[in-house]
Amino acid sequence: MGIIVQKFGGTSVGSVEKIRNVAERAIEEVNNGNQVVVVVSAMGKTTDHLVSMAKEISSYPSKREMDMLLTTGEQITISLLAMTLKELGQEAISYTGWQAGIETEPIHSNARIMNIETGKILDQLKQGKIVVVAGFQGWTADGEITTLGRGGSDTTAVALAAALKAEKCDIYTDVTGVYTTDPRYVEGARKLLSVSYDEMLELANLGAGVLHPRAVEFAKNYKIPLQVRSSMERVLGTIIEEEATMEQNLVVRGIAFEDGITRVTICGLSGKIGTLSTVFTTLAKHHINVDIIIQSMTQEQNSTSLSFSIKSDDVKETLKVLNTYKEQLDFSHVETETDLAKVSIVGSGMVSNPGVAAEMFQVLAENDIQIKMVSTSEIKVSTVVAEAEMLKAVKALHNAFNLEAVPAV
Amino acid sequence: MGIIVQKFGGTSVGSVEKIRNVAERAIEEVNNGNQVVVVVSAMGKTTDHLVSMAKEISSYPSKREMDMLLTTGEQITISLLAMTLKELGQEAISYTGWQAGIETEPIHSNARIMNIETGKILDQLKQGKIVVVAGFQGWTADGEITTLGRGGSDTTAVALAAALKAEKCDIYTDVTGVYTTDPRYVEGARKLLSVSYDEMLELANLGAGVLHPRAVEFAKNYKIPLQVRSSMERVLGTIIEEEATMEQNLVVRGIAFEDGITRVTICGLSGKIGTLSTVFTTLAKHHINVDIIIQSMTQEQNSTSLSFSIKSDDVKETLKVLNTYKEQLDFSHVETETDLAKVSIVGSGMVSNPGVAAEMFQVLAENDIQIKMVSTSEIKVSTVVAEAEMLKAVKALHNAFNLEAVPAV
Repeated sequence: MGIIVQKFGGTSVGSVEKIRNVAERAIEEVNNGNQVVVVVSAMGKTTDHLVSMAKEISSYPSKREMDMLLTTGEQITISLLAMTLKELGQEAISYTGWQAGIETEPIHSNARIMNIETGKILDQLKQGKIVVVAGFQGWTADGEITTLGRGGSDTTAVALAAALKAEKCDIYTDVTGVYTTDPRYVEGARKLLSVSYDEMLELANLGAGVLHPRAVEFAKNYKIPLQVRSSMERVLGTIIEEEATMEQNLVVRGIAFEDGITRVTICGLSGKIGTLSTVFTTLAKHHINVDIIIQSMTQEQNSTSLSFSIKSDDVKETLKVLNTYKEQLDFSHVETETDLAKVSIVGSGMVSNPGVAAEMFQVLAENDIQIKMVSTSEIKVSTVVAEAEMLKAVKALHNAFNLEAVPAV
Repeated sequence: MGIIVQKFGGTSVGSVEKIRNVAERAIEEVNNGNQVVVVVSAMGKTTDHLVSMAKEISSYPSKREMDMLLTTGEQITISLLAMTLKELGQEAISYTGWQAGIETEPIHSNARIMNIETGKILDQLKQGKIVVVAGFQGWTADGEITTLGRGGSDTTAVALAAALKAEKCDIYTDVTGVYTTDPRYVEGARKLLSVSYDEMLELANLGAGVLHPRAVEFAKNYKIPLQVRSSMERVLGTIIEEEATMEQNLVVRGIAFEDGITRVTICGLSGKIGTLSTVFTTLAKHHINVDIIIQSMTQEQNSTSLSFSIKSDDVKETLKVLNTYKEQLDFSHVETETDLAKVSIVGSGMVSNPGVAAEMFQVLAENDIQIKMVSTSEIKVSTVVAEAEMLKAVKALHNAFNLEAVPAV
């Protein structure tokens, strides 16, 4: 008999009826002989509604007061879920973040968890209760209410699993697992039985939004086996663990893709030391996330041209920022190319298979797809291509790397 | 420079716009040189919405989880009000019940306040901030979230005023003060400049629902001057204090009334000792509130007839309970008279004016109004009359006791 942590997101608890389904899933694990902790997010559109009231009051509402406001969302869900469990005859108790002993650093809206006092939860589990914990929130040593930022509830679940030495942490969501690529666009996409933490990190960062990278990182550090599974369908999900034990023969395990990308090129940058860091520090200050960066030196003029990719939504702001700092940065002009997309292949096996990037480029070339930018890591190769050719590229790669051969589960 | 506690109820904070009005009222007091603590309830219909979700889940939801659920209501209001204050340039901080150090007994849904740790609030006031506190809620020594039951936010405000040794406690509401009688029904009703705690207690208990009796009792015990005033109109309210200083010449200070009353008479009750307590203990167990009680002994048969008044909504349940216990209680039959109303006169001066009750009966008699039941206390006389004659009785009494002569303010 072990401890299992279950996490259900906003859509899984979006109505009283859906909360009943969550309660049933939790009770099933109790009936299997486990002690169960359930972490939940705010119900469906609750957070949006609260944010819209705050925005009516202020364009930049106080972060402390936003935390005070938003944490009511999960508090509503935990009370309703605990009521439902009791109504179904299962003893249960709900805890807010602070009641669950989740201590964070003293930062509002994006705090990291420092420590979890597990005594109270363990006591209640011993009494045979399901403990329902509000995700996304904690408190500081001073008794201030804090939140964990994006992916917060996933992080709460994984952190609790680590602190409680749980057997596993099940992340229930509206998809049935992690796929070789997005099944909504690629017919042959296959669910993976397992992926490694690192592969999941790359996939999550590349927009396969099943699980927040921060939670994956936490799970990796504490070696918590995660399972991504469906809250509605009773089917096997995907296990995320230290070493992916299945499908070891696959070099590439997933294809991730994302449209709405723009390439920005700053031409004629002076070669001064520090120029590069000035450009990106300036953009970061304006909350513009830069993804792939390529620098090319033109020998004859001692000037550099610098390309980077951003989300197309950020183009206007980026150009504004660059023009504001034009003199300081000392460049001649800026060029942009929009309607681009990023297509990436991910797989731990790439470390020991040096030809994979080359194979990817060849597949794209054979399909007449021009590569605009490339970026590689040990277990990933990302390319930027024309948006119109994105799906063609994904399908060709999915096929070339034999991902349809993954057994359908 | 003193501390002022302001309390705003649900209708006064029902929208973002109304919250802005509350913020302005609070800032006015700061500009007058005061330190200000604001206690707020949940926004308008929030509580109803939360209760309806709980009712969808269970007919008798767990009281602990109801407290967990309902306390989110005030937490939303405090965060929005603190944001608004900051947006208006006023430093402010919001506290939930537990953050404000409001410790209650370990009972859910209807806890009493045991102690308030004021250190944190006093610190923030010294820093020039307005402190916004969630009404209606507290916590126990074990870190459980509790609520104070009906009139909870009024009680929070008065308790904070007592603990902080506040100069006064202003209860903002949707009426402009306490009236000699309900101005919606009696044209000549006049706002009172002041009433005593005891008079307010009787008026509150008699259905003049401006202020919860529990909060008045608390204010009386700690000698906190209360003011009931309008959150929308900038006019004088009514002061509630130890001795009503104005209008001392008035023996009767207010006429309260309530319709929907039924008289229940249990005939042929055995004269056994303990019968009376058995009847009312049994009714209380079934949550039936009994108001006026009259016992009359019929000499010849050594049997008693017992009359009491209840709300007409409770008649069905009352009869069911009485019939269930018919044998145990040992009575012959039950008679009921519905469509009755209670009309009461209230005034501290009655203690030293023994003829007041007689005068009341005479006024009613002169107006051909039959009195069905009577109950008196030191500062109150209540009569039960036909519902159809209620307003006629109120107007006659209002006139006879010269209440229209109260200066209009």
